[in-house]
Amino acid sequence: MIKNLYLALVHSPVVNRNGKAIGSALTTIDLHDIARASMTFGVKGFYVVTPFEDQQALTHKIIEHWTKGIGGVINPGRKDALELIRVASSFEDACADIKQENKSPLVTIGTSAKEYGDSVSILEFKGQLNKENPHILAFGTAWGLSQGFIDNCDTILEPIKGKGDFNHLSVRSAVSIYLDRIFN
Amino acid sequence: MIKNLYLALVHSPVVNRNGKAIGSALTTIDLHDIARASMTFGVKGFYVVTPFEDQQALTHKIIEHWTKGIGGVINPGRKDALELIRVASSFEDACADIKQENKSPLVTIGTSAKEYGDSVSILEFKGQLNKENPHILAFGTAWGLSQGFIDNCDTILEPIKGKGDFNHLSVRSAVSIYLDRIFN
Repeated sequence: MIKNLYLALVHSPVVNRNGKAIGSALTTIDLHDIARASMTFGVKGFYVVTPFEDQQALTHKIIEHWTKGIGGVINPGRKDALELIRVASSFEDACADIKQENKSPLVTIGTSAKEYGDSVSILEFKGQLNKENPHILAFGTAWGLSQGFIDNCDTILEPIKGKGDFNHLSVRSAVSIYLDRIFN
Repeated sequence: MIKNLYLALVHSPVVNRNGKAIGSALTTIDLHDIARASMTFGVKGFYVVTPFEDQQALTHKIIEHWTKGIGGVINPGRKDALELIRVASSFEDACADIKQENKSPLVTIGTSAKEYGDSVSILEFKGQLNKENPHILAFGTAWGLSQGFIDNCDTILEPIKGKGDFNHLSVRSAVSIYLDRIFN
């Protein structure tokens, strides 16, 4: 099993419905749902990646409410989960932070609802991973990670497939299913 | 594989954080995330169960925006997903509706983040199911389905377990993981 798995929820660079590169706005429920799933499966840290200072400040404000404010008093389970959240200006910053923390090379993994020729299944991924190195699993908001971002990842995981061609899971659902598949 | 699987998102009877029976308010993102996961995995119908008329009206309004209004024009994938949503005043009404549709007995399945002595694993459940009968999988909002509701279900599925004792997944994450485990 992977020793130290990190998550990144990327708000830039992602694409909009027309495939144009954008920076997306924070969806606050993403913080809660993905932190709770991360806590469930033992993720070491969950990076909210946004270059926008107002969005970084909003993220810090939400984390503070649930970890140091009244939210955490009322709901201690939520406190534990939201303590996993870290804020980064870029994916590169998040990666540098993890390398520093682990004193180790880092494996970057991209996810997408689209098929890529060189993507690997979760089973293949589990077979080939170096358990000693930390890994970061990146998820795109909006219409997904940009092509350039995907090209820079060490590995791309296959999309989650269901019964037909429909591939419009929320990022919250996609994170939950990928984590369950990786750890179970 | 199950032929006709339905989902129910139950807003009453559920319990609050103190274990007291309540009726909960609609969380609109639940409709989107659970409809999208349902569409992905081939769920036949997704019942939003609430006894409150204002909440039923709100649900209908959201469905209408995304299936007949501008939402569906902008986002056809979302339209397909939200067309799966049906509104019911009670779980019993949803069950009656399904029995009528299928001219068949219905198997009711409860889910919980808590352990019950007689709960079954997904694997056991898949082994014992009668593929010809429709099944309905019930999820509780707030702090989960009431004890009475659980007692009335034909089967209770084991909670989703991760690495430790943390069992505070969002209902959106739980639905996604249960569906993935049932269909994959």
